[in-house]
Amino acid sequence: MLIQAEQSFKKIFENWLLDFLNARQGRTLKSDVLLESQKYSLLSGGKRFRPMLAYLTFELFSTDIKKIKNLCLALELVHTYSLIHDDLPCMDNDDFRRGKPTNHKVFSEDISLLAGDGLLTDVFELIANDAFSDAETKLQVIQNLAGRIGSFGMVGGQALDMKINSQVTVENLELIHKLKTANLIEMAVLGAGLYAKLSESKLNALKEFGHCLGMAFQIKDDLLDMNDNEQDFKSYVAVLGITQTQEQLRNYSDRAQLALSQLNVQSATLSELVNFNLSRST
Amino acid sequence: MLIQAEQSFKKIFENWLLDFLNARQGRTLKSDVLLESQKYSLLSGGKRFRPMLAYLTFELFSTDIKKIKNLCLALELVHTYSLIHDDLPCMDNDDFRRGKPTNHKVFSEDISLLAGDGLLTDVFELIANDAFSDAETKLQVIQNLAGRIGSFGMVGGQALDMKINSQVTVENLELIHKLKTANLIEMAVLGAGLYAKLSESKLNALKEFGHCLGMAFQIKDDLLDMNDNEQDFKSYVAVLGITQTQEQLRNYSDRAQLALSQLNVQSATLSELVNFNLSRST
Repeated sequence: MLIQAEQSFKKIFENWLLDFLNARQGRTLKSDVLLESQKYSLLSGGKRFRPMLAYLTFELFSTDIKKIKNLCLALELVHTYSLIHDDLPCMDNDDFRRGKPTNHKVFSEDISLLAGDGLLTDVFELIANDAFSDAETKLQVIQNLAGRIGSFGMVGGQALDMKINSQVTVENLELIHKLKTANLIEMAVLGAGLYAKLSESKLNALKEFGHCLGMAFQIKDDLLDMNDNEQDFKSYVAVLGITQTQEQLRNYSDRAQLALSQLNVQSATLSELVNFNLSRST
Repeated sequence: MLIQAEQSFKKIFENWLLDFLNARQGRTLKSDVLLESQKYSLLSGGKRFRPMLAYLTFELFSTDIKKIKNLCLALELVHTYSLIHDDLPCMDNDDFRRGKPTNHKVFSEDISLLAGDGLLTDVFELIANDAFSDAETKLQVIQNLAGRIGSFGMVGGQALDMKINSQVTVENLELIHKLKTANLIEMAVLGAGLYAKLSESKLNALKEFGHCLGMAFQIKDDLLDMNDNEQDFKSYVAVLGITQTQEQLRNYSDRAQLALSQLNVQSATLSELVNFNLSRST
């Protein structure tokens, strides 16, 4: 059921993204290199996990899927901007991503920096311009999104991560994972709830679900990466050991399932997603 | 009159900024370096031109100045983010700004990159969270701001500027100046009009005023810089010669004054600002 939902989402999303990119091309300046570099990274084979999560969540409450389109695009733009900036020489200095040269290897560092800045800014125009939602809802989405990805969210987590060079406590590690990873995943789920105009209590259940799913994904990644040659000392396995890390994974997954059950809707696809994470091997 | 207005604005603004920075400190994570680096650039002696312009424009229509506070802060945050990123080694590679070491010279490139990303993102949270305005107005501000500073605005202009290495036409030069400089100045003026809930025709007059003032400022800068050792080949003087550049300056200034007169308010401070630009020597 999850695989079916995933496939049907992917078709829809890739069309949305191509429409979005084509419309941008029509709006272009005399220099196309900025848009080319953004397109390069947006079409470089991402899993579309965050938009998919927003889509699958929204589907639980509404069939009016055009309402979730701009959030799906926005989430992928944010994710892509963060990867372009993370790969830069002054950050992780990565030459390859998803088997292809990183953005700055193809377009030079200055353009990659600007490509990220542009995508991040365009996200807010995209949400504000959405014709399918009311001002109040869009403003709540902007507020929640900006808060989760700004200086006190994703960007803050990245800075914390860059500056911790030793003595990682489990509290710091949880904070980094929450800010860098779980925040945007939480936003995908919460954003879907906001567009579906859910009650406060259901929105809280969605926040809990998104947070726990995000943490579970990151912890699973830490477990899968533990056999890498260069093991990150900022990983759950390094800080807690294997047994306790596995326990954390189960805890977060259980909490995610519990939160789902509080929504009182048929949520089999999302429940399967939690289970899929527990058993995935890549 | 302009000098008086400027001084009274500056006192108010510096207090707003300190309040803003203190509130951020209270919200801090375990690592303060990101916020420190943002504070360093925000407090490094900028002229506060964009917020001042928003403030002086708003004052023409309303005495309820708390309504313009977040726009003033947002404009300075945007300007500061753009300077931090512009100074990075992969961009202009500047070691000094306003007589002090640039952000990355003090905090390292990774933190400066993130400091800019964070400020840019926080801008949208700041506007969305504003308690003194309605959802519709805030959304219009976000839409107009993001459009003017994103891939088709300031960031797009910067990319265009980086990639033009020869044969600058006057059309390209105008586009670069509009996108890189005039757009944000126009936004300061337009934003004030949006918060003051002006009519469509007055908003249009404000856009024309802001655009022309922004262009006039940039052209005046080009004239003042023409005796520099390294004259920029992407300047009005290089492309048009001195006489035609001076004519352009007068044209834009006249258009700015005409637009002001269409507002049907006492706008002596803004009119003085246009004249001040014509005669300034730094």
